[in-house]
Amino acid sequence: MNAYRLTLPGDRPGVFGLCVAPQAPATPGPHEIVVEVRAASLNRRDLMLLDGTYPLPATAGVVPLSDGCGEVIAVGEAVTRVVVGDRVASTYFPHWIDGPQRLSHVREQFGANHDGWLAEHVVLHEESAVRVPAHLTDPEAASLTCAGVVAWSALTKPRPVRAGETVVTVGTGTVALFAVQFARMHGARVVAVTSTSDRAKRLLALGADETIDRTETPDWERPVLDLTGGAGAEHVVDTVGSLTLPKSVAAGAFNAQVTLIGAFPGGTPTADPFGGRYLSIRRIAVGSRADFEAMNRAIAEHGSRPVIDRVFGFDEAAEAYRYFRDGKPFGKVVVQH
Amino acid sequence: MNAYRLTLPGDRPGVFGLCVAPQAPATPGPHEIVVEVRAASLNRRDLMLLDGTYPLPATAGVVPLSDGCGEVIAVGEAVTRVVVGDRVASTYFPHWIDGPQRLSHVREQFGANHDGWLAEHVVLHEESAVRVPAHLTDPEAASLTCAGVVAWSALTKPRPVRAGETVVTVGTGTVALFAVQFARMHGARVVAVTSTSDRAKRLLALGADETIDRTETPDWERPVLDLTGGAGAEHVVDTVGSLTLPKSVAAGAFNAQVTLIGAFPGGTPTADPFGGRYLSIRRIAVGSRADFEAMNRAIAEHGSRPVIDRVFGFDEAAEAYRYFRDGKPFGKVVVQH
Amino acid sequence: MNAYRLTLPGDRPGVFGLCVAPQAPATPGPHEIVVEVRAASLNRRDLMLLDGTYPLPATAGVVPLSDGCGEVIAVGEAVTRVVVGDRVASTYFPHWIDGPQRLSHVREQFGANHDGWLAEHVVLHEESAVRVPAHLTDPEAASLTCAGVVAWSALTKPRPVRAGETVVTVGTGTVALFAVQFARMHGARVVAVTSTSDRAKRLLALGADETIDRTETPDWERPVLDLTGGAGAEHVVDTVGSLTLPKSVAAGAFNAQVTLIGAFPGGTPTADPFGGRYLSIRRIAVGSRADFEAMNRAIAEHGSRPVIDRVFGFDEAAEAYRYFRDGKPFGKVVVQH
Amino acid sequence: MNAYRLTLPGDRPGVFGLCVAPQAPATPGPHEIVVEVRAASLNRRDLMLLDGTYPLPATAGVVPLSDGCGEVIAVGEAVTRVVVGDRVASTYFPHWIDGPQRLSHVREQFGANHDGWLAEHVVLHEESAVRVPAHLTDPEAASLTCAGVVAWSALTKPRPVRAGETVVTVGTGTVALFAVQFARMHGARVVAVTSTSDRAKRLLALGADETIDRTETPDWERPVLDLTGGAGAEHVVDTVGSLTLPKSVAAGAFNAQVTLIGAFPGGTPTADPFGGRYLSIRRIAVGSRADFEAMNRAIAEHGSRPVIDRVFGFDEAAEAYRYFRDGKPFGKVVVQH
Repeated sequence: MNAYRLTLPGDRPGVFGLCVAPQAPATPGPHEIVVEVRAASLNRRDLMLLDGTYPLPATAGVVPLSDGCGEVIAVGEAVTRVVVGDRVASTYFPHWIDGPQRLSHVREQFGANHDGWLAEHVVLHEESAVRVPAHLTDPEAASLTCAGVVAWSALTKPRPVRAGETVVTVGTGTVALFAVQFARMHGARVVAVTSTSDRAKRLLALGADETIDRTETPDWERPVLDLTGGAGAEHVVDTVGSLTLPKSVAAGAFNAQVTLIGAFPGGTPTADPFGGRYLSIRRIAVGSRADFEAMNRAIAEHGSRPVIDRVFGFDEAAEAYRYFRDGKPFGKVVVQH
Repeated sequence: MNAYRLTLPGDRPGVFGLCVAPQAPATPGPHEIVVEVRAASLNRRDLMLLDGTYPLPATAGVVPLSDGCGEVIAVGEAVTRVVVGDRVASTYFPHWIDGPQRLSHVREQFGANHDGWLAEHVVLHEESAVRVPAHLTDPEAASLTCAGVVAWSALTKPRPVRAGETVVTVGTGTVALFAVQFARMHGARVVAVTSTSDRAKRLLALGADETIDRTETPDWERPVLDLTGGAGAEHVVDTVGSLTLPKSVAAGAFNAQVTLIGAFPGGTPTADPFGGRYLSIRRIAVGSRADFEAMNRAIAEHGSRPVIDRVFGFDEAAEAYRYFRDGKPFGKVVVQH
Repeated sequence: MNAYRLTLPGDRPGVFGLCVAPQAPATPGPHEIVVEVRAASLNRRDLMLLDGTYPLPATAGVVPLSDGCGEVIAVGEAVTRVVVGDRVASTYFPHWIDGPQRLSHVREQFGANHDGWLAEHVVLHEESAVRVPAHLTDPEAASLTCAGVVAWSALTKPRPVRAGETVVTVGTGTVALFAVQFARMHGARVVAVTSTSDRAKRLLALGADETIDRTETPDWERPVLDLTGGAGAEHVVDTVGSLTLPKSVAAGAFNAQVTLIGAFPGGTPTADPFGGRYLSIRRIAVGSRADFEAMNRAIAEHGSRPVIDRVFGFDEAAEAYRYFRDGKPFGKVVVQH
Repeated sequence: MNAYRLTLPGDRPGVFGLCVAPQAPATPGPHEIVVEVRAASLNRRDLMLLDGTYPLPATAGVVPLSDGCGEVIAVGEAVTRVVVGDRVASTYFPHWIDGPQRLSHVREQFGANHDGWLAEHVVLHEESAVRVPAHLTDPEAASLTCAGVVAWSALTKPRPVRAGETVVTVGTGTVALFAVQFARMHGARVVAVTSTSDRAKRLLALGADETIDRTETPDWERPVLDLTGGAGAEHVVDTVGSLTLPKSVAAGAFNAQVTLIGAFPGGTPTADPFGGRYLSIRRIAVGSRADFEAMNRAIAEHGSRPVIDRVFGFDEAAEAYRYFRDGKPFGKVVVQH
């Protein structure tokens, strides 16, 4: 049995900071479970962890990746939440069960300072386990934890999107793709903003009602305002960052929720983030176990599926990292056993 | 030009309290509009008004019906919200624009103490006018004001239903039919509870995922609990009243929103409305103009249509009342010009 | 070292079902702490547990009482939330950390099926420990867990009471006393409804702005409506139950939050819980650890103190139960070491 | 009878753009009221209107000032909301009654494109009238409309501040002074940030628990974090703008509400408004009539009073403008008849 681990940072930490080491068999503690990993997937934060640009420094030797799924093969004597044979993922934050996010929650993360999923086995506290929808393949089920949950949180908290509202998604990373799916699931109209025209068709195929190419239309808030009778969109999910924030704000309605996603890098500084608008800009980081479970019920009910770009073998993990960084994937990049 | 009016209550107020009288041409005041009525529809409150059982006593001589649509044919000099040619309905309450409902709002109602829609013309303050979705026929557009808006409010306030949640609808009146449609629109799973088996198929056709016949299954909370893994439904929209409330509560999840609709008559008294459950029971009455407009955006976006049972001519209004009372309609009963 | 324990139910379970047994010294597990108990206090649920009328059946042999405080004297190797020397209470539900209450939370409770505080030592998982405000005496700090937290939850969720709003408290048990204090703390006007005139003065001394004797004034909703210009109170905290619910509802404003507290027994059945009002009736059970901690911050900031009626010695626990049942205490009944 | 009016903009619009002109006696329309002005007060927006820097351009000839109070001396035949003799103010926006703010609300404002209060008479639609607390003097009652209501909105929406939470106020303009009072009224701890040390004492006298001089302590988020055990403040009311926003954000807790007030001018641009924090930044503009009325109930209940710096006579209005611009007032600048 083997696991990938992050090596000690060298002169310039990078993708080659990944090593493979034998993994000892695990015996679960009273409230622990052992999961045989079937698949794991990459998020931008995993590159940032390698690059040393993630807000939470990685612990040297940690097993990377927050996203994965596998089968429970052993449970501790006191475990009640799952049984052997269940297919589970883990939460992103080991201690965020429900309610609002607290500072204490974000200081611990799988794949950063708790062993993650790029391994053959993972040992979890039962409170961190989340059963995954039955209709999903292993690569799909291994794609939910980070990008899925944050898109879900963006659209369902503090006020869930309502049918008939307009949701603007900015970007074509996996968070934006989930946001398109979840916004449609709630009956909203989706305007997807992308910077590359070839992705427009794929966004439409995914369910977007309209797409705007922000390279061709730098003032892309105008078509959003036109499409909404001048009012603007009730929700804007901006997965790009400070580069697009001013336009996201300009595209927002009075009292809109403009949501910035997590630790993503931005672009050039902006003068006044609000321009002349009266609304809320909210910055969020993933979600709680309760959010994950609510999302899974919706995915199961709708039979929807994450977008998968490419699946690599467990031996090709370094190649998966490289492809994720340079290959301009549309959808998740997965490592499967 | 004619209008129906409620006569003075006689010995036993009833359906024959409706009379026809000539209607003088109207000139709009500065902020008023004149609407040529195309269709109007009945709600249970209109029978209660005739019967003297509605909480707000009718004004003798008032034109009945809160629900209707027509074309704007004249506007006052200061009007800015609509133009001649717009097709509009009115709000249910002349003064409830937005925000929470207040006592002052419910004391004035179209068709009760403000002239309503069973006429050839209606004069409205511009603030009471609401444009209706373009894809709807006149009878459909005349079916939204009361039953549509209250179903919308039940599911979108204070916390909108989220995709993947379970919504139980109780009853097969028009409020329940709208609730099935709106719950599906938001991505929820719908369990429709009915007391007559022949309606089950029609509820399924309308989008319900499951139906339960409460005559056959008096303890109908059990299948709801089974369908939700024992947890119960996050939303219950009970359009029947105190007869079904104990079971609606028993079918609700922790922290569920159980919504009772308006002024509907109930059945036998209940001991403890909560049984052993910890949740909220909310009683609501229609909604604000802002709710109506939000609902219309959703209906337009989804191209959905109210269920119409039967359309009568303007001369057949009394017959429409009789059919509505005795005919067990499935969907709206409409009077069309 | 000794602990009181609930005996096996006999023919008629009652207060004499309490026995004293030696308590073995405890060694904490990795995430556990050992607390030397300084004081514990009684709640109505503790009588109901003895009487077999509480919704959650007690486990024979369990140490009773959810409310208590003590000093941490040992911590497991992995504990990070508290240190030796901290003065702590426990949550009411071992697993409700934050967010909305779930069915799974209420199935486990200290003093019912997890050993509670009527002992010399208590062993807690660190996640169940809550530090108590420094300015409180031990009996005061042992009075917060159940009655304090539920009163706090009633007034701060889902929408916190705002300054200038009117809060009606119904009853003079400890929940109502806390509710008076917390409502005043938020700047609300408090109308306290009691059934015994001698308690009116004590309620005024505690901060109530007005009191109403519901024995003298059975239609006590009228003075509430008069005091609020006919509008009714924005919050009603009803600690009595179905006996007073109809009047609590009648005293509530449009959109009021009427909160029923927990598992308290009621009186005669009521026909229609809503009368003619449009509002929410919410039934709640205590609160989460996050609620407890938020309440403690407020109590500390304001230097406020729970009302203590009488303090018994540890050897007098049975007498404390008897006094609590029969002595008509005004404030908490505490057992102190 | 006279009224001040804004003159046509000249080469450089400024304080001398104010002229006095005779005011004709008014007859109220059916839903209008005539108010004899007793006092009016200035806000920063009134300087911005003179300077041409306010987002909504002033209409030449408009009577300035949104804030004022007076006695109702005549009412139209259909008026029901007030009676002759009532002392009233007006809302800031003629059409924002309740619910969330919409784009349409902000396009009309008293003192900008609707005649305001710097006159002997003002004619209002009855829906714009708000009765003021009886215990206030005329200058105090004329000080509530803009600064009072926006401070109230900042702290009570979307989630009201709770007792025991920490509120940071940034600035010492009248909005900040109201925010200190309202935060205390809700039982919160207040940390007031000022740039001039002599104001610290006055803020403490007003109720602030702590003050920080941001000139002496440029990294003033540090003492806020220290005072909150590292967690940060739950609410930050920033009345300065983009100059202080980065520190306001840094002083905020996870999920904090950081509220930026209205159209106030900012300072130097900021790179990333969020730094590393996960929270909401909300920009708001005054509040609705419902907010105004809720605030008045709280002010009346608490007997609190706006801070008045200086009162000028009606003939000294130009001097009042000059003093407001240059005199560094602490509290409201009022013009009284």
